[in-house]
Amino acid sequence: MAADASTRPGRPGRRPGPTETREKILDCARRLFAEKGYDGASLRGIAREAGVDPALVHHFFGTKQGVFIEAMRFPIDPQAILSRVAGTRSRDELGVALAEVFLEIWEDPARRVPVLAMLRSAMTNEQVATMMRQFVSAALLGPVTEAFGIAPIRVEAAVGQLIGVAMLRYVLGVEPIASATRQELVELLAPTLQRHFDEG
Amino acid sequence: MAADASTRPGRPGRRPGPTETREKILDCARRLFAEKGYDGASLRGIAREAGVDPALVHHFFGTKQGVFIEAMRFPIDPQAILSRVAGTRSRDELGVALAEVFLEIWEDPARRVPVLAMLRSAMTNEQVATMMRQFVSAALLGPVTEAFGIAPIRVEAAVGQLIGVAMLRYVLGVEPIASATRQELVELLAPTLQRHFDEG
Repeated sequence: MAADASTRPGRPGRRPGPTETREKILDCARRLFAEKGYDGASLRGIAREAGVDPALVHHFFGTKQGVFIEAMRFPIDPQAILSRVAGTRSRDELGVALAEVFLEIWEDPARRVPVLAMLRSAMTNEQVATMMRQFVSAALLGPVTEAFGIAPIRVEAAVGQLIGVAMLRYVLGVEPIASATRQELVELLAPTLQRHFDEG
Repeated sequence: MAADASTRPGRPGRRPGPTETREKILDCARRLFAEKGYDGASLRGIAREAGVDPALVHHFFGTKQGVFIEAMRFPIDPQAILSRVAGTRSRDELGVALAEVFLEIWEDPARRVPVLAMLRSAMTNEQVATMMRQFVSAALLGPVTEAFGIAPIRVEAAVGQLIGVAMLRYVLGVEPIASATRQELVELLAPTLQRHFDEG
């Protein structure tokens, strides 16, 4: 017991503890999210699985959403999107705001490639589809719906417009939409998004 | 060769010749479409590759589009879509017609599953993406654009709306759009499609 390495004085270099613990928590989180879905896994359950105190998970990652983003290397932070969209001065600017924030993400290959990879695995793997559905609903669609009082199906129709254009532009590379400028796309799509919101 | 065909069950009394030739043409077509894309492959080139007369390819499959649909087991016949959409009495009904014909395809698992499989491989395989892009442009987007005088980017925005909703409904299963009735979806989407067409 007293011979434990950590009790020895003067040991040079970094203690491996925190990094290993962090990785262990993320491993357990990945397994739990896959097994139970996003809704079914809890911060407490992840902590138990990793054999650590829930306060430590909270200390490393904040919320369950934070654990998920790290564990799944999810390239979009819903909080960032929400605060951008919520910062819109009037409800009439929601369409433009949403089009701009989505294009910003899609135009950045470092974020686009992992989103596409995740969509692709959701197409073959029911567990991944469940995780993504629950995460996107809880972290993004739900809050937008509540904050602006828009019917959920309307928010989804708007998000669908953006996802579909992304498939044509970035995956299939169909012209002329693949070569359109970001501004042209905002002008093309913002009125459609706005219309979905106004009627919802 | 003859031994090959005879091992296929359930085809008594058929001479193997035409079936084998047909399969050989389709094999060569798949290879050529992958190598040269849809635009780069010709009916004549496919015939040459298979060592048969172009007239025979024409006899079996009609046009290059017909060869492609068979070779790739492409589950959508663009001609059927075009004639449905072209049968619309007035330009004001284009949105409803397009929403209905797409939903009819997506609601049929026998057609939805292969479309999703092809989209999935387009997401990883540049050759498949090129083939799909060229085929969809030549067989579907081009003709709609021409027949109705709508700007191509507008047709693509409308198709994007439909593809994205399909991803949310059938792949991710996000509620409430996953459980909406077909009629609810037509009412949700047709005005959006129509708007894209009217402004294009």
